[in-house]
Amino acid sequence: MIYQLTVTQFCKMLNNLNLILDKAAAYADSKKFDMGVLLEARLAPDQFNFTRQIQIVCDTAKLGASRLTGKEAPKHDDNEKTLAEIRTRISDTISYLESFTEKDYAESATRHISQPRWEGKYLTGEEFVLHHAVPNFYFHMTTAYAILRHNGVDVGKKDYLGAIPYKK
Amino acid sequence: MIYQLTVTQFCKMLNNLNLILDKAAAYADSKKFDMGVLLEARLAPDQFNFTRQIQIVCDTAKLGASRLTGKEAPKHDDNEKTLAEIRTRISDTISYLESFTEKDYAESATRHISQPRWEGKYLTGEEFVLHHAVPNFYFHMTTAYAILRHNGVDVGKKDYLGAIPYKK
Repeated sequence: MIYQLTVTQFCKMLNNLNLILDKAAAYADSKKFDMGVLLEARLAPDQFNFTRQIQIVCDTAKLGASRLTGKEAPKHDDNEKTLAEIRTRISDTISYLESFTEKDYAESATRHISQPRWEGKYLTGEEFVLHHAVPNFYFHMTTAYAILRHNGVDVGKKDYLGAIPYKK
Repeated sequence: MIYQLTVTQFCKMLNNLNLILDKAAAYADSKKFDMGVLLEARLAPDQFNFTRQIQIVCDTAKLGASRLTGKEAPKHDDNEKTLAEIRTRISDTISYLESFTEKDYAESATRHISQPRWEGKYLTGEEFVLHHAVPNFYFHMTTAYAILRHNGVDVGKKDYLGAIPYKK
């Protein structure tokens, strides 16, 4: 289930984010303000702004895949300034995630995952997904959404959730 | 993994929420305003307020467990008005989740899940967790957090994530 949670589902959410960005751009256009205002918006003065939230959403997905599979991730310099650059960051992340198959995740649940800031400590892949990758990904995704929502962009939970594969 | 994702981890997040409520109450106290102001706060005029976000967090966890196991859930009338009532709602939800064991989830991945509003359509348990329970739970949890963050409560991502079970 790790592959579904962190590849299939994260790709879906990043595609939802693209459609949310369409709505944000249309709103800026209709109100005749610069989209940069939304890209720099935040909900508290000491909170990361919208652009940084998106960078972290992307990194949580990208580095999660890299750590869970042991494959190197492409580098990003976190210097996106425009909507076009943010879209490129998102599509790069989706492409990287799509380069994996379920087979790459065969050992992921038991793999030892660490990060420099954890000072030699580790989590198993399953713990990493449960306690770190999933809550962090949705945290920054929802925070980005909330920043737009607070600023009047006409987004609703359906935009966040995306299509649900109901069966008859 | 469904049990870990939707019982163990949701319980952990609800306990984190309790500590976040402690910080909110301490903040209201220190600034000498009524806690009810935060309970009714929202980020947009057509968004559910803080109290409703918590009710939905709790219901997403409670009804998820009920649907994934086929066991009836306790009823709640969504009439919480005070911090004490909200705390009771959260602790009720934790107690309900804690009444399950991993064994109760043996068939959960393949169980057909439906809701009245889905008009006879269904998801498998695994699809329900991936596309519905997990994204919804973290959405309302993070929205509740963001409402407090926006209003000046001194919460950070560590409060949201809670303890991480690092190993040496």
